[in-house]
Amino acid sequence: MRVLFGLAVLVVIAKFAGLLARRCGQAAVLGELLAGIAIGNLLPLAFGMGGVEFMRTDETLQVLAEIGVLLLLFDVGLEADLRGLVRVGWSSLLVATVGVVVPFALGWGTAAILIPEASPIVHVFVGATLTATSVGITARVLQEFGLSTSKEGQIILGAAVLDDVFGLVILAVVSGMVGAGESELSSALATAPAIFGKAFLFLGVAALVGHYTYRPLLRGIGALNEHGLLLVVGLALCFLCACLAELIGLAGILGAFAAGFILDPYAQGVRTAAEERTLAELMKPLGTVFVPLFFVLTGMRVDLSVMADPAALGLGAALITVAIVGKLVSGLAVLTRGARKLVVAVGMVPRGEVGLVFAGLGTTLMVGGVPLLSKEVFAALILMVLVTTLVAPITLTKVLR
Amino acid sequence: MRVLFGLAVLVVIAKFAGLLARRCGQAAVLGELLAGIAIGNLLPLAFGMGGVEFMRTDETLQVLAEIGVLLLLFDVGLEADLRGLVRVGWSSLLVATVGVVVPFALGWGTAAILIPEASPIVHVFVGATLTATSVGITARVLQEFGLSTSKEGQIILGAAVLDDVFGLVILAVVSGMVGAGESELSSALATAPAIFGKAFLFLGVAALVGHYTYRPLLRGIGALNEHGLLLVVGLALCFLCACLAELIGLAGILGAFAAGFILDPYAQGVRTAAEERTLAELMKPLGTVFVPLFFVLTGMRVDLSVMADPAALGLGAALITVAIVGKLVSGLAVLTRGARKLVVAVGMVPRGEVGLVFAGLGTTLMVGGVPLLSKEVFAALILMVLVTTLVAPITLTKVLR
Repeated sequence: MRVLFGLAVLVVIAKFAGLLARRCGQAAVLGELLAGIAIGNLLPLAFGMGGVEFMRTDETLQVLAEIGVLLLLFDVGLEADLRGLVRVGWSSLLVATVGVVVPFALGWGTAAILIPEASPIVHVFVGATLTATSVGITARVLQEFGLSTSKEGQIILGAAVLDDVFGLVILAVVSGMVGAGESELSSALATAPAIFGKAFLFLGVAALVGHYTYRPLLRGIGALNEHGLLLVVGLALCFLCACLAELIGLAGILGAFAAGFILDPYAQGVRTAAEERTLAELMKPLGTVFVPLFFVLTGMRVDLSVMADPAALGLGAALITVAIVGKLVSGLAVLTRGARKLVVAVGMVPRGEVGLVFAGLGTTLMVGGVPLLSKEVFAALILMVLVTTLVAPITLTKVLR
Repeated sequence: MRVLFGLAVLVVIAKFAGLLARRCGQAAVLGELLAGIAIGNLLPLAFGMGGVEFMRTDETLQVLAEIGVLLLLFDVGLEADLRGLVRVGWSSLLVATVGVVVPFALGWGTAAILIPEASPIVHVFVGATLTATSVGITARVLQEFGLSTSKEGQIILGAAVLDDVFGLVILAVVSGMVGAGESELSSALATAPAIFGKAFLFLGVAALVGHYTYRPLLRGIGALNEHGLLLVVGLALCFLCACLAELIGLAGILGAFAAGFILDPYAQGVRTAAEERTLAELMKPLGTVFVPLFFVLTGMRVDLSVMADPAALGLGAALITVAIVGKLVSGLAVLTRGARKLVVAVGMVPRGEVGLVFAGLGTTLMVGGVPLLSKEVFAALILMVLVTTLVAPITLTKVLR
């Protein structure tokens, strides 16, 4: 019952915070994130940690939030126009590459200069955390402006997916370095091409399977003429693809995105004779409930108190600068005619949940019994994620107006 | 990830089992229940308990199933016509009273005759388990026939809600007897009027609050003109009312039903200017996913192997007889003109999840370190719940044709 209470309260707060943000001319997701930060940091001051800690750590709420982010990516996949993505494919690939290499190098260098006392692995790890692009945040803003299928949207979404792949590869390599000990850098690097290839193979197979099966599948569902079947099959496909992706060592969100791809390779709107509405329309009420839950819970996990340390703040400020500059540079790599470079550049900035996952992993990796990342470095990374995540939707909204 | 996998698999199996049941002219819920029983009892024979046990006990799946049953009752509450319920109020009250008193007395007597060696509390407890009416099963069948708002539907739903109240009172009294020791029957009985009054007060206050606030509330939501707000507020109200009901010691499903009541006291279909669709229509995709999950998981919890004991089978057969006769008699108490007595009588028969909850409680209550119910009595009760739950939708479907 506590879970239901938490769910009800968080969803309502998220909805009203989103509404408030939109009334202020911002993206709803910004309101949801800030509401989460406020709940996570202000409520404990007033009432103690009890209820907040429960909502922050409850496994069921985490799963519901996870369902939310999978639904979001599934929806993005459904709306992604495969032909459009291929048209902008080279731009996506270039933007993603520049947007990974530049922040990685800048972050590595900044860390090496500002915290020379830390291990070289920490420097590499900081660089890796800067490579992530939170497709969730940008996708939400683009969706709110109806721009998910625009050229800029396709480039960003394609590049963000590729960034996840690149980021996961770098992270896997760094984790391998920590596990094997610093000296065996070469053997850790040997696993990189395998992970890299796996991710591309996964998306390629999904696109291929989709091309040949989605019409027969939809015809079958339509022929059974059962109300709700389209939604259930679509949802199951989303979850199963996410599980499959996790199973082979990739991110679940990549699988959810691929599932959307499979069902709608040419973005015509999945629909059967038995249903009045398309799959995306049927999913909407589910997304309305679960997607904001993800963002409010992500906000709740941000602990503002660790920002009080001036050393953390200094490193954080430096990392914010290189994180933003590094991703803005990637906008220059846009080749597609008519696509606004600035929109793409700003759209690549937020690190969001992916950045948080990376930073969190750094505190669970152990080197000689001590966490890889010190509290200050972790705080600086959290600050970087927070600022890029908050600044990007505000700026993107301004740019799009 | 295991949760997502379980969710995807169970929802798809439930959907196809429901589809198969409908193709056979039965209610979808029957297929969902039988699919659950098959998964719970056949799969472990083939592959061991691992995966099934996980799905049966995973807390997150339980919460999602709980959400399903709350959504179902919320929807029933939304569709319940308050004026209609008052019109059939006396019939509901009489049917509920007869449908509680007769099975209670018959079950008590049967247990006293067939298992004289057991404690008198066990006899009372068996009687109490027979009082439940599973509003879920009958509600689904009626909903599938579009009869939720018919006279018979209103009488059954009203009586089932009252039965839950009566049943919970008897259960609270019996639990009190176990806790206080057999001798203090009188003091345990003293708490009965309080629980009884609380439940009626809860529904009364809900109806009153609904009457005066639902119009301003809907106007407010409409004025904010935010997409999805109606769904989020409705869902939150459903969950919060369920929590409130649990908090004051009533069943959560009673709260969800009351929440539906509050939002739609005259069954006009809750709708705001900002949404094209009514609240019930917006809830449908959520119900499509979570409601079948509840029934398939309920089925999975039925362990058929305990039915091998002939003593359990004999007691079970006797209990099935009195359970069915006891509820069929309640149909005679229908006063409303034009309402088919047989439909009401059959509709009252299934014990479903409520009966399972009662029986399960009997194995957690301890008397001198030993569970109140022996394995045989528990098996007999499960058999009774199973048969009444399976027979009722089949018979009801036949009667309605």
